[in-house]
Amino acid sequence: MPLSINKEAAKIAREICSNPEKHNVIVERSHTGAYVIDAGIDAEGGFLIGKLIVEICLGGLGTATLSMTHLGDIELPSINVYTDKPAISTLASQMAGWRIKVGDYMAMASGPARALAQKPKGIYEKIGYRDESDEAVIVLETSRKPPEEVIRSIAESCRVPPEKLYIIVAPTRSIACLTQVSGRVVEVGIYRLVEVGFDPKAIIYACGEAPIPPPHPDETESMGRSNDMILYGGSVQVVVDYHNDEYLERIAKEAVSSASRDYGRPFAEIFRGVGGDFYKIDPKVFAPARIVIMNRKTGRVFASGRINVEVLLKSLGLG
Amino acid sequence: MPLSINKEAAKIAREICSNPEKHNVIVERSHTGAYVIDAGIDAEGGFLIGKLIVEICLGGLGTATLSMTHLGDIELPSINVYTDKPAISTLASQMAGWRIKVGDYMAMASGPARALAQKPKGIYEKIGYRDESDEAVIVLETSRKPPEEVIRSIAESCRVPPEKLYIIVAPTRSIACLTQVSGRVVEVGIYRLVEVGFDPKAIIYACGEAPIPPPHPDETESMGRSNDMILYGGSVQVVVDYHNDEYLERIAKEAVSSASRDYGRPFAEIFRGVGGDFYKIDPKVFAPARIVIMNRKTGRVFASGRINVEVLLKSLGLG
Amino acid sequence: MPLSINKEAAKIAREICSNPEKHNVIVERSHTGAYVIDAGIDAEGGFLIGKLIVEICLGGLGTATLSMTHLGDIELPSINVYTDKPAISTLASQMAGWRIKVGDYMAMASGPARALAQKPKGIYEKIGYRDESDEAVIVLETSRKPPEEVIRSIAESCRVPPEKLYIIVAPTRSIACLTQVSGRVVEVGIYRLVEVGFDPKAIIYACGEAPIPPPHPDETESMGRSNDMILYGGSVQVVVDYHNDEYLERIAKEAVSSASRDYGRPFAEIFRGVGGDFYKIDPKVFAPARIVIMNRKTGRVFASGRINVEVLLKSLGLG
Repeated sequence: MPLSINKEAAKIAREICSNPEKHNVIVERSHTGAYVIDAGIDAEGGFLIGKLIVEICLGGLGTATLSMTHLGDIELPSINVYTDKPAISTLASQMAGWRIKVGDYMAMASGPARALAQKPKGIYEKIGYRDESDEAVIVLETSRKPPEEVIRSIAESCRVPPEKLYIIVAPTRSIACLTQVSGRVVEVGIYRLVEVGFDPKAIIYACGEAPIPPPHPDETESMGRSNDMILYGGSVQVVVDYHNDEYLERIAKEAVSSASRDYGRPFAEIFRGVGGDFYKIDPKVFAPARIVIMNRKTGRVFASGRINVEVLLKSLGLG
Repeated sequence: MPLSINKEAAKIAREICSNPEKHNVIVERSHTGAYVIDAGIDAEGGFLIGKLIVEICLGGLGTATLSMTHLGDIELPSINVYTDKPAISTLASQMAGWRIKVGDYMAMASGPARALAQKPKGIYEKIGYRDESDEAVIVLETSRKPPEEVIRSIAESCRVPPEKLYIIVAPTRSIACLTQVSGRVVEVGIYRLVEVGFDPKAIIYACGEAPIPPPHPDETESMGRSNDMILYGGSVQVVVDYHNDEYLERIAKEAVSSASRDYGRPFAEIFRGVGGDFYKIDPKVFAPARIVIMNRKTGRVFASGRINVEVLLKSLGLG
Repeated sequence: MPLSINKEAAKIAREICSNPEKHNVIVERSHTGAYVIDAGIDAEGGFLIGKLIVEICLGGLGTATLSMTHLGDIELPSINVYTDKPAISTLASQMAGWRIKVGDYMAMASGPARALAQKPKGIYEKIGYRDESDEAVIVLETSRKPPEEVIRSIAESCRVPPEKLYIIVAPTRSIACLTQVSGRVVEVGIYRLVEVGFDPKAIIYACGEAPIPPPHPDETESMGRSNDMILYGGSVQVVVDYHNDEYLERIAKEAVSSASRDYGRPFAEIFRGVGGDFYKIDPKVFAPARIVIMNRKTGRVFASGRINVEVLLKSLGLG
């Protein structure tokens, strides 16, 4: 019986639903029976549910641990992630790769439900993974709970009955969401490696850590800080199995944020500098500050990039 | 159904009672049926039961993680705490706010049982929390197991039958207790913020870390080291929701130990300097070394204080 | 009922067997019914199963946590271990103290099964521990699954029926094994203290941390890196109860790797320097980089050694 990331994630979701007060969430069942877990709209949510959302997003195939990071003189909460199935847990599940749009409702979706709906299809062919499950778990970055027609649409895309669908919602600025986004540090590193041409199936194990940013009421600043934690504070380590060390040496240098021409300023500043047009930002900047590639085929280790405390402090308004 | 911190803590207590040997504790049932969990009197206890005691003291509403801290050249065990209900978990439960005195028996009590007995009453009005539970869990810092009349008195104050009362006991100098006291780092920070006038309900999330001190046979030295770990080694981060940044900037400076005139020497030295009279010590020194306040209403971040390695090493006799 | 380290470890082993896919292992039952858990031969295994193997090796009497370590400019995955029964969990169980040799099959074994087979007998007399269990759990460092006669022989040595025997196998170069070996950092410290003459029963609590090395295909390099992580990167803290501080001060200095004449070069280099003859290597080098001894009888703290980043980077080919 092959592993189902939706079934693994559903175990965590059920645990949350069994004690919403403890997890600081509000759980409602929609008319069609779907579980809607509010982790930051009307509920306060927090770091701890954020950690569980990371583990849900990894399809149950990784662990997230809350810790503390020193940035020069100041300390920030941080999150550490380990996964031994990096391609499946990050690309097939954790990546925010499904743009849900039904009527006027729009939200970026991540989590294992993506694998049932095959969103986007290309990635599943590339990594050769397909989930089969009558349960689905999805995480929506949104400040508005999905109306019934959105829920029905998600369930249909996943081919599961709505009463077996778990939808976790949290707004961008909520601590749960900020925690969850920092928990994507490994995914960002792997996505970047794949973007520069590396085969995701050659990435065997991965781990990493990123600070969790202080929340900000402004959408741009909040999104900026989330990015900064990874771009200037995120560290990723991957074990690969690959025949060509020269190639690894090169992509290690390309897969960190400092390879980008936009590197060096807080993300909100970059964003405003291009008039808020995402497509004008160099995509190479969406990368961890630091990457360590370890090749088990040859024993060679390639490290590049560095934690950039100065920009991080600027991002917090302390620089 | 509102959350009961006693019921949450009782789950952890029951787990401990189901395998005392593994947790290095001795569990006895008193004549009236209360569970007395010895974590350091006749039992050896240790770091791991200390971690669980922290989670019990947080009323199940937070997590404690054992980690390691670098202090200059040396490493110490340390404990990291996260809570998303800081006012309830720290002030209503973790704070050692109940002085139990029955006959010649005296012990400082912490843990969720305080919320049932409303000790001290003022704090519960301030944070607007009230627990309802037929189970109670209490932690006593003591080197003497409570006699039956003390147990009966605690049960009565909490209005629970003795057979649903869990009492965890550990002497000040035990590793379980030292771990538990370092685990109060966030509580100390929040208590201090409230003392300088801040509304505890405006503190939405909190986390922090402190080293766990090496044990010392002398009562004053042991208590001194426990305090030093927080006063000179404790770091606290809080997310607040507050309308006035200037005020936050000011209290950030007031809520760290360096704001006190007694700051700068190991606590045992301060204590001896006032002839062992607690009331002559500046209460402002009972604060973390470092605090970071993040205001989610404005996005501003205020950091003050610093980890003071020199005093910490002195506290360990290495300075 | 005294604690059984085999029963505690068997709980973890059963949990692994209940969901092999999640743990990235392959579980087979041998003809006689033993569970063979492959964590790195045909299965990929990884950091997470490595962490569980550490906890199995500690006989369930300790915790292992995956974290991250900074070595100068680079970060490595690392593992943190806590145990409150150090003598039993490390010497009676975790130590790779049983050389299994049946026919042409050879493997070093660790884990609680050793306590049933009393391998080596002397250690069990020294620490006064004896396990009674009808279940046994053993960890083999090997790239070849044990044939049936080996399984039968292990079961017989442990006096358990084969169907109650759990055998975890992982090759030296696998991430699971590298994680597990770094997780021995506390055991190496305690073993060293005992070697220089200290009574293991006077060691009351212990913890420590070591980086997990990047894998290397060459046997000598791989084994070298595993050793380097402890010899140059491992930090151990122990709480002891002892009457003689001068003695503790002396053994603190003797129980770190820098006390050895072979200290200062990557282990693979030392190994090649003696023509690959283990017996020509100074045994004193098998020690953690850093040790902190805390004496609860007197409150004194003795620290010696240091993390040696330069040699660690050399070990990774980055120096």
